[in-house]
Amino acid sequence: MTELENMGRRAKEAARALATAGPKKDAWLLEIAGALEAHRDEILAANRQDLQNAKESGMSEAMLDRLALNPGRIAGMAEGVRRVAAQADPVGRVISGGVRPNGLRIEKVTVPLGVIGMIYEARPNVTSDAAALCLKAGNAIILRGGKEAIRSNTAIAEIMRAAAAKSGLPEDGIQLVRDTSRESALGLMNLTGYLDVLIPRGGAGLIRSVTKNSRVPVIETGVGNCHVFVDESADPEMAAGIVFNAKTSRPSVCNAAETLLVHRAAAEQILPLVKKRLDEKNVELRCCERSLRILGGPDERLVPATEEDWETEYSDYILAVKVVDSLDDAIAHIAKYSSGHSEAIVTQSVRSAGEFTARVDSAAVYVNASTRFTDGGEFGLGAEIGISTQKLHARGPMGVNELTSWKFVVVGNGQIRI
Amino acid sequence: MTELENMGRRAKEAARALATAGPKKDAWLLEIAGALEAHRDEILAANRQDLQNAKESGMSEAMLDRLALNPGRIAGMAEGVRRVAAQADPVGRVISGGVRPNGLRIEKVTVPLGVIGMIYEARPNVTSDAAALCLKAGNAIILRGGKEAIRSNTAIAEIMRAAAAKSGLPEDGIQLVRDTSRESALGLMNLTGYLDVLIPRGGAGLIRSVTKNSRVPVIETGVGNCHVFVDESADPEMAAGIVFNAKTSRPSVCNAAETLLVHRAAAEQILPLVKKRLDEKNVELRCCERSLRILGGPDERLVPATEEDWETEYSDYILAVKVVDSLDDAIAHIAKYSSGHSEAIVTQSVRSAGEFTARVDSAAVYVNASTRFTDGGEFGLGAEIGISTQKLHARGPMGVNELTSWKFVVVGNGQIRI
Repeated sequence: MTELENMGRRAKEAARALATAGPKKDAWLLEIAGALEAHRDEILAANRQDLQNAKESGMSEAMLDRLALNPGRIAGMAEGVRRVAAQADPVGRVISGGVRPNGLRIEKVTVPLGVIGMIYEARPNVTSDAAALCLKAGNAIILRGGKEAIRSNTAIAEIMRAAAAKSGLPEDGIQLVRDTSRESALGLMNLTGYLDVLIPRGGAGLIRSVTKNSRVPVIETGVGNCHVFVDESADPEMAAGIVFNAKTSRPSVCNAAETLLVHRAAAEQILPLVKKRLDEKNVELRCCERSLRILGGPDERLVPATEEDWETEYSDYILAVKVVDSLDDAIAHIAKYSSGHSEAIVTQSVRSAGEFTARVDSAAVYVNASTRFTDGGEFGLGAEIGISTQKLHARGPMGVNELTSWKFVVVGNGQIRI
Repeated sequence: MTELENMGRRAKEAARALATAGPKKDAWLLEIAGALEAHRDEILAANRQDLQNAKESGMSEAMLDRLALNPGRIAGMAEGVRRVAAQADPVGRVISGGVRPNGLRIEKVTVPLGVIGMIYEARPNVTSDAAALCLKAGNAIILRGGKEAIRSNTAIAEIMRAAAAKSGLPEDGIQLVRDTSRESALGLMNLTGYLDVLIPRGGAGLIRSVTKNSRVPVIETGVGNCHVFVDESADPEMAAGIVFNAKTSRPSVCNAAETLLVHRAAAEQILPLVKKRLDEKNVELRCCERSLRILGGPDERLVPATEEDWETEYSDYILAVKVVDSLDDAIAHIAKYSSGHSEAIVTQSVRSAGEFTARVDSAAVYVNASTRFTDGGEFGLGAEIGISTQKLHARGPMGVNELTSWKFVVVGNGQIRI
């Protein structure tokens, strides 16, 4: 039995206890929150080591910022765990039920998924966020973070495990893979028979690798090539405001817009307005021929677009821009290039809004609002473990309810099937 | 582009039309039902050829019976399609929704999964059953049946496709893979980018092969190593009746019982009663030491059990029998050997019933009823496309609702995220 199989076996055992743990799960979560604060200095010491190693190996400033913890961020982690504890128990909820003509009482009841694997990158706060959400839904979790954060993650995981004792629950409900090699990631992807699902969280490269190589069922998350379409009838100021927000309020996240599509009848009026707003943040525009002409490019921040631009999630102050002939063309462009995350239409036409929301096949479709709202908190689901861009099991922001399955509980008095 | 990729591309296009087809889907389904009856003789002629080839290659009588069609079975297929048409549209249902504090109206609305692949074995009625269910939920389907039924399947698929025209929907919503080689099955398992999900339906060997080799997400169906546990407090007559029904009413199906567990305090009384009932059908018992001693074996139909017996789905008039020391031991045995399909407890104890239903981790858990009820029709879901034994996406009998996903439709009036 390999080390990972051994972890899988222990996780399965822990999952059995967690499945029926009820409020004990919240006791463990509250212990975790307190322990993260009580052991703040240990976590910060481990994080300083990670940061020093990362600097020595030449990590970028943006990545260093993602890796860095400070007292405020640790307080935020603890607060996040407390918020998860305060949510309603997602397990044991009766989804539907009734009595059949033969007298059988059938209830469809939520249960945990079982054992969840999580492969993620540099941000150590994911360690406590993901563990809290999985635990709340009665699942055991095996965490495999990036090598850059291994010391921080190890410290956090040990603190969470040690907090189990007082709640009477098995510490193996939370396990961290210490080996951060590519082999350990591949090992998790092949840990069928132990893992019920694997959730990758990180950049497009990680997600692609996991969906391609995993034999364990995967929930694909977080790759966002999001579009805003400004229709013929759009309110110009609203359109400029939404595009500006969708692109620039936080360009590094998956719900930021990457391509602007503009109806040709609105292009002459809308594009200069949009450009004026985006200039505040020095956004570079990668333009189709028509939009380039309208905006008077090319110049330093007005660049002709290539095919690749329609496919790219920039995660940066860059926006692809295309003039389209119709709503149909906009929908066709989105069908071809979107990653199925979030798309918005700006329009005053009820008919265009209806067509767009019905025919665009993405996790979230917006009318007259920014794509930036696709988020568990904003949608009222509480904290999220990721945003699914696939259609199986869960789609869009996934909260604790999306970390459950169901069983049918059938009660009779001797019924047999004729 | 390979032939399969080409089919995938056409299926994706068809799926886009089907996603918003509304009642046109029912028009197509009713056309299909009528056409199956109108072209009955063509289907029967094709089926006779399949049967002749199968006889020549030495197919067993049981398998020949699964392959065979007759006027009654074709009428049954048509009736099944009509019943699916009569169900409520599973697409466009608002699962939940409301207005957020910022004024955004968010609705979670059901949508089709997209393109569904189906790999199945000898029964040609699956061709129309599966196509009808997928179509009703707005999905395109690519069917890949077994080589034994290829002529029957081709005739049925052509009739269903031809029926599309009058409804104004694309015939490529239903496609059949003509190549029945192992390569075409593997090709479907690797048709990522076109297939949203692959559903295998057939024997344990097929299911194993698909779950092992597929890179397309799979819904695992239908392998059933089901248990009946007779508790200390069970009503003996009820116990004997449930075991008899669960084992012998249709031994070849997945919800039939394969192992009987008996509490040691009840074994002396229950086992002879159960054996007496099972003798009516000449059921062979594979017994643990204690049950063998109580029943006075070994003899021709009382055989010592080996480890393999606890793992086996016999699908035959054979039952494994084990005396256990406690409810806990029964639950542990089930956790170790069950395929997670259906398990029953026979008991008069509220406490035992509660423990069993809470702690046994299977798609359906029964108190005082036969495992044979695990079925979409019996559960009131209408026709089923299979019984999921996994926890992701859907668990237990899957009807049209389980062939959908959802999207979030968000309507605002210019909201941006601060």
